[in-house]
Amino acid sequence: MSIVSARSAARRGDLLRLSSLFVRTLREDPADAEVASHRLLVRAGYIRRAAPGVYSWLPLGLRVLAKVEAVVREEMNAIGAQEVHFPALLPREPYEATGRWSEYGPNLFRLQDRKQADYLLAPTHEEMFTLLVKDLYSSYKDLPLTLFQIQTKYRDEARPRAGLIRGREFVMKDAYSFDIDDDGLAQAYERQRGAYQRIFDRLGLEYVIVSATSGAMGGSRSEEFLSPSPIGEDTFVRSADGYAANVEAVATPVPPAVPYDDAPAAHVEDTPDTPTIATLVDFANAHHARGDRPWTAADTLKNVVLAVTQPDGARELLVVGVPGDREVDVKRLEAALAPAEAEAATDADFAAHPELVKGYIGPGVLGPQGKQLLDPATGTTRSAVRYLLDPRVVAGTRWITGADAPGQHVFDLVAERDFTADGTIEAAEVRAGDLAPDGSGPLELARGIEIGHIFQLGRKYAESLGLNVLDPHGKQTTVTMGSYGIGVTRVLAALAEAHHDDKGLAWPAHVAPAHVHVVATGKGAEIFDQAAEIAEGLADRGVEVIYDDRPKVSPGVKFKDAELFGVPLLVVVGRGLADGVVEVRPRAGEAEQVAVADVVDVAATRVAELLA
Amino acid sequence: MSIVSARSAARRGDLLRLSSLFVRTLREDPADAEVASHRLLVRAGYIRRAAPGVYSWLPLGLRVLAKVEAVVREEMNAIGAQEVHFPALLPREPYEATGRWSEYGPNLFRLQDRKQADYLLAPTHEEMFTLLVKDLYSSYKDLPLTLFQIQTKYRDEARPRAGLIRGREFVMKDAYSFDIDDDGLAQAYERQRGAYQRIFDRLGLEYVIVSATSGAMGGSRSEEFLSPSPIGEDTFVRSADGYAANVEAVATPVPPAVPYDDAPAAHVEDTPDTPTIATLVDFANAHHARGDRPWTAADTLKNVVLAVTQPDGARELLVVGVPGDREVDVKRLEAALAPAEAEAATDADFAAHPELVKGYIGPGVLGPQGKQLLDPATGTTRSAVRYLLDPRVVAGTRWITGADAPGQHVFDLVAERDFTADGTIEAAEVRAGDLAPDGSGPLELARGIEIGHIFQLGRKYAESLGLNVLDPHGKQTTVTMGSYGIGVTRVLAALAEAHHDDKGLAWPAHVAPAHVHVVATGKGAEIFDQAAEIAEGLADRGVEVIYDDRPKVSPGVKFKDAELFGVPLLVVVGRGLADGVVEVRPRAGEAEQVAVADVVDVAATRVAELLA
Repeated sequence: MSIVSARSAARRGDLLRLSSLFVRTLREDPADAEVASHRLLVRAGYIRRAAPGVYSWLPLGLRVLAKVEAVVREEMNAIGAQEVHFPALLPREPYEATGRWSEYGPNLFRLQDRKQADYLLAPTHEEMFTLLVKDLYSSYKDLPLTLFQIQTKYRDEARPRAGLIRGREFVMKDAYSFDIDDDGLAQAYERQRGAYQRIFDRLGLEYVIVSATSGAMGGSRSEEFLSPSPIGEDTFVRSADGYAANVEAVATPVPPAVPYDDAPAAHVEDTPDTPTIATLVDFANAHHARGDRPWTAADTLKNVVLAVTQPDGARELLVVGVPGDREVDVKRLEAALAPAEAEAATDADFAAHPELVKGYIGPGVLGPQGKQLLDPATGTTRSAVRYLLDPRVVAGTRWITGADAPGQHVFDLVAERDFTADGTIEAAEVRAGDLAPDGSGPLELARGIEIGHIFQLGRKYAESLGLNVLDPHGKQTTVTMGSYGIGVTRVLAALAEAHHDDKGLAWPAHVAPAHVHVVATGKGAEIFDQAAEIAEGLADRGVEVIYDDRPKVSPGVKFKDAELFGVPLLVVVGRGLADGVVEVRPRAGEAEQVAVADVVDVAATRVAELLA
Repeated sequence: MSIVSARSAARRGDLLRLSSLFVRTLREDPADAEVASHRLLVRAGYIRRAAPGVYSWLPLGLRVLAKVEAVVREEMNAIGAQEVHFPALLPREPYEATGRWSEYGPNLFRLQDRKQADYLLAPTHEEMFTLLVKDLYSSYKDLPLTLFQIQTKYRDEARPRAGLIRGREFVMKDAYSFDIDDDGLAQAYERQRGAYQRIFDRLGLEYVIVSATSGAMGGSRSEEFLSPSPIGEDTFVRSADGYAANVEAVATPVPPAVPYDDAPAAHVEDTPDTPTIATLVDFANAHHARGDRPWTAADTLKNVVLAVTQPDGARELLVVGVPGDREVDVKRLEAALAPAEAEAATDADFAAHPELVKGYIGPGVLGPQGKQLLDPATGTTRSAVRYLLDPRVVAGTRWITGADAPGQHVFDLVAERDFTADGTIEAAEVRAGDLAPDGSGPLELARGIEIGHIFQLGRKYAESLGLNVLDPHGKQTTVTMGSYGIGVTRVLAALAEAHHDDKGLAWPAHVAPAHVHVVATGKGAEIFDQAAEIAEGLADRGVEVIYDDRPKVSPGVKFKDAELFGVPLLVVVGRGLADGVVEVRPRAGEAEQVAVADVVDVAATRVAELLA
């Protein structure tokens, strides 16, 4: 005798009767819902808003969430990751040690306990994982190790939006690998990468793997899993030959330097009323036409003034020089400046920096050129505003740019000969048709929802928090770590974005709140008796069933609700019963008429096919 | 074909190898651990402290927790309760509407978001459940309804203690029933009560059901499930004939009034140096002996001065009069005064109330007797300190008590004739041998850990938050609610308290992190090969196995770890292998020698018996 016999007894499928299921559908879209997943999950009674970016889960939503979690858990277990669970409420100290208590700025929920000790609601748990491993382990023999948790996280987003896609309380799977060397880390990374592919495949969620910046997290190799969607917050690029990256991670191919020995000397020209690139190009073509071709915006160097705020609140100006045919992409800029945030400079900023002549700003007063300006307000000198250039502005390139006086621009200003900067920055927008940095050709752009992120953290946290182990030679060695996240609640929203139509949700069978939705339409007791028998029969076969047994609800309302809920297979018991048939119909497909006696078999078979 | 066939495939049991399992046992008790569950759960590597009253869960601990949760969930589902999930981070408003934002006082974790909006970490979710039902439901036809969640809660305890028993972040199952009338509520209450009995029976946790006060929650019928344990924070009483109550809920049987027509007049006597009951009784017997029997402490009326603080911080004095042979039990007092808190009056309090002569306080200056005292500090009059009496101080009882002057007491002071109070209060300690209020005889006292609490909330929250439905006559009716909690993490600790010995934990099979612990002792590859084969064979049979495959760890250490972990069945592969036998031994029982070929069968059978 074994205990398997007890376990393998056929498990009955859940049977949810709509007459008692805790759910109400809404005919109207909620006022705050901008995207389909938010709109439909609320309308179908899966979730309810409790506060901005904070949601309550109703029974149907919780069923889907549990299924997503189960798939994530199974695939983590399958690669030997071990499950743990950390608190959400954590003391300040570990986050102080890594600098993130302040780096997170206003995105962190902070609080004090009754003894005025500082706490936070953890947005992520690198510190805790690192300290726990330090607490338990001390030798290379204990490694490799991968831990994970599925846990509620908090982030005080400035603009929570799109329902579950950017919330302030959300569920994440976060995993961390611990290895003695880079090779081990690379292997752990590959194992997670494979598990992520299997997870999203099983969930029925299309994804693209793109190179990513590491943002505020530090580290080296890093990829994001994006679910392509027009409502995604991330923009990514792809080349036909396989390059794929988050737009924030795209490195601009640096053109070769241009010889400038025979370049004409720079010359300042009066360019009245040309505060914009368009007016400047028009003026140049009208008054300083070049022989070979017209001037274009790409011949001008646009110097954009930004204010950069560090997490500790320190704010300073920065000028970014980009070719005049490109805008500064603030997300790319912030990715390059992380954890600082950037915004356009204000009138007050310009007033405090009279050397910045709006519309006519040039390198002459910036960075290396502008050092030790006299501050008229204080009568003392100060350093010029920091100046960073787009990587395309290589030595020898020639530019029309501001001459730092109203109505004046300088022509033939040559990079390196006439000006330099404090460095380069990836801040210019990436455009369709730009070339991939790996030489794989022109890029196309698309949007996606970030559903997973894997990256090689390296030794940053282990160093900050002192996670060392003895290596085989008895020497203390810093552990190297990887970090692997999946936004579990966001995955559910991405599934809803990918699988719906204008009538409602349309879940893949593996995550649907039930497999079959049985609808009794009509008034006769016979219809309800037969529908109940079919629902029970399916449940006995292990099928999960929603049964719409509401006695006084019209067929129209029942069908609308069924379409909204999005269960993959519908069984309709109604008029056909007089002829001994019942309708079996996929959520969005052709109906088949099935003899009553066969319907449980047929529907169970269809479900098994969907789950195969 | 049905989908059951896919599901019922024999599930393999987990096999945890100690060479890679994320766990480290400690030989020393953690310094802050006062109780066995805390000590052993930390030492066995189940949990780790992250902050006071806040714990991280390691793989073994999480496995036990998941099993406890699963039993709770199954029994909730079985009685038709529907699972939902609320946020932990909640806005202030609903808790303001019910008054609990302030009533919770310093026990509530409060915080502000980046827009300075007030939030809390929910200690309990009555408000959210009530509002959600109000949001979705509107008719008596929607009822009855019971919802539940298994969720993380927060409580900023003044003194988090005993590990998981009183934490600040903890997991609870909370359920709420919604009914149109009292009869429906009574039925819902009984269903939960039955489910609780099944839950604790399945978990293998002894419990006593006792009558309870409702504390700060309001409402009527209320019972607690206590796991008897000397380290429990709750004291309960039992009579041989079936009365059982939390000591806070014990009502003192009120004796009949005593005729006092022929009682002597009260008379003040000099009683120098008698500030305590003991000195007073000695003096009375020495100088004012009574003929029939000696005076005892029970003849004196002790007036205890307390300071009562309301949740809003308002603080005022209260005097409680109890027979001199009893102490005031602060927990009983606070249960009677909830949500206010009480403490002993300070020297400053006495200084501000010169009429309260320490050691000689009597009813003469208290409550009704003492109205409109002159306050020497301000020269104005104020009301006397509020005065409440133990229910035993009925009309006609005669007392020796303070005369409100140093070294003086009054004798033959008769209740009702000579003094009254502002009311009665259940504040005197309950003692073994006291009579049960229902006439079922003398009480015995014991301690227990509160693992569950069920009570009929009634209409308090529905009224505060406007949860009405239309009744069958089309009239708006307030819904009546029940509230049903289980401390899931605390249940795990109570299980550890109930099932351990001085060597370690000893889990019931249903909640153990594994069913069998296989130990390979010795150095030969043959032993490890055989042990691995047994472990794999058991896992194939669906048995969950911990396999101690550590190559260079001594048998002594392995046995100590096995005893600490507390898995119910041990299989030892060692020297006996030379004779073809392996040892099979319960965690605390007799070993049997089993032929190698039979060991998987035998161990699987033992496990099946333990799980039966």
